[in-house]
Amino acid sequence: MELCTDLQQIEHEIIELNNRYARILDDDRLEEWPGLFVEDCRYAIHPRDNYKAGLEGYWLYFEGNAMLRDRVKSLRVANLYNIHQDRRIVTGVMLDQAHGEVYHARSAFLIVQTDVEGRGRFFSAGEYLDKIVATDDGLKFQERLVVPDSFNMHGLVAVPF
Amino acid sequence: MELCTDLQQIEHEIIELNNRYARILDDDRLEEWPGLFVEDCRYAIHPRDNYKAGLEGYWLYFEGNAMLRDRVKSLRVANLYNIHQDRRIVTGVMLDQAHGEVYHARSAFLIVQTDVEGRGRFFSAGEYLDKIVATDDGLKFQERLVVPDSFNMHGLVAVPF
Amino acid sequence: MELCTDLQQIEHEIIELNNRYARILDDDRLEEWPGLFVEDCRYAIHPRDNYKAGLEGYWLYFEGNAMLRDRVKSLRVANLYNIHQDRRIVTGVMLDQAHGEVYHARSAFLIVQTDVEGRGRFFSAGEYLDKIVATDDGLKFQERLVVPDSFNMHGLVAVPF
Repeated sequence: MELCTDLQQIEHEIIELNNRYARILDDDRLEEWPGLFVEDCRYAIHPRDNYKAGLEGYWLYFEGNAMLRDRVKSLRVANLYNIHQDRRIVTGVMLDQAHGEVYHARSAFLIVQTDVEGRGRFFSAGEYLDKIVATDDGLKFQERLVVPDSFNMHGLVAVPF
Repeated sequence: MELCTDLQQIEHEIIELNNRYARILDDDRLEEWPGLFVEDCRYAIHPRDNYKAGLEGYWLYFEGNAMLRDRVKSLRVANLYNIHQDRRIVTGVMLDQAHGEVYHARSAFLIVQTDVEGRGRFFSAGEYLDKIVATDDGLKFQERLVVPDSFNMHGLVAVPF
Repeated sequence: MELCTDLQQIEHEIIELNNRYARILDDDRLEEWPGLFVEDCRYAIHPRDNYKAGLEGYWLYFEGNAMLRDRVKSLRVANLYNIHQDRRIVTGVMLDQAHGEVYHARSAFLIVQTDVEGRGRFFSAGEYLDKIVATDDGLKFQERLVVPDSFNMHGLVAVPF
């Protein structure tokens, strides 16, 4: 019955959180995206070269849920970017460490974007490095650090990875 | 022990059904594909633009298992299409609703095709929207609606997605 | 409580072994790669066309853990190859057969490579065909046969698939 340990249950819920995250963005339900994070959160996209070299130089850097909500509003009313349909492929979810109720997890992502002419192509691949916490509403991200391998892409960084 | 609830068991079996589906097609065991569906089934490929606009305009539309078996026969003896090897990457399987023993599930897919010269490339990405039912032989598809994001592709729509 | 059968527990551990394998290579922790195999092991990359035709003609063929360790050393000190960052997407892990404590499993892989200019692209897709055994240190590969669909690629076969 080892499968049913508490940590395996947590890992299962982390996979579900990842699935919801991908689904919400691929469905263009951006307004639901901040709800996956706690209030006092951090979300950043930090390209691998900078991340590895210990350099600042983020593509996006948000502290606090209000900045996430602001980003969504800005995507809806202000930003201009290439219209596209995303498809996120997220695999290899692993729970690395548990400190009390803070869980450190990693996973691999691949994003395919399809443009208005129906041409789908590889957009970016990389890793999610997460700190996840238990809340009354289930697991949420305290921190999601997106580390793209690829920084030479078709299209723009608009919608969250 | 929450992992062991009935719904988690069902979700686990839905993941296995998806794995078998991908495997059968990637192995070119087309004859086994109709067996993943019940007799009174529906299988359709409905490109996202049409699907979202509420327009008919399917790439394929089969009602009843006989049409699926017919398709297989036609692929074996009549259709001409580019020879290729498929590789299906299916992730994000989620059980959305359970009405009695009818389960609504979604998942993300990515298909890579490799041609006879060994050149592999992105073929299509999109979603599976499923109604799955319990039978004496385990779970089967009552309906599989394939919604590709990409409709501007190298190659032809021949083998089921 | 059916989820908690022994075989489902084993399948869960096989998924974890696959996740560790992908992570170790994507992290460029090559030195840890031989540790995923038992001493008396086999690792080979056998392109699908040759594999299906029953022809020898491997890209790599290693027997015994010493050859794996030697490969790592050679990659570190001798081989010249294009610098890149890999991202492995591994899905569809299935436990096919269990003979005592030898488990036969298959899975689908997709490897994306990103070059030094940040350009990520599809590298190869295919299958892993594994014999996995229980050891005192958990599950390990007795044999991993990599069967790439695609053999016409950007880049070189240097780092293990």
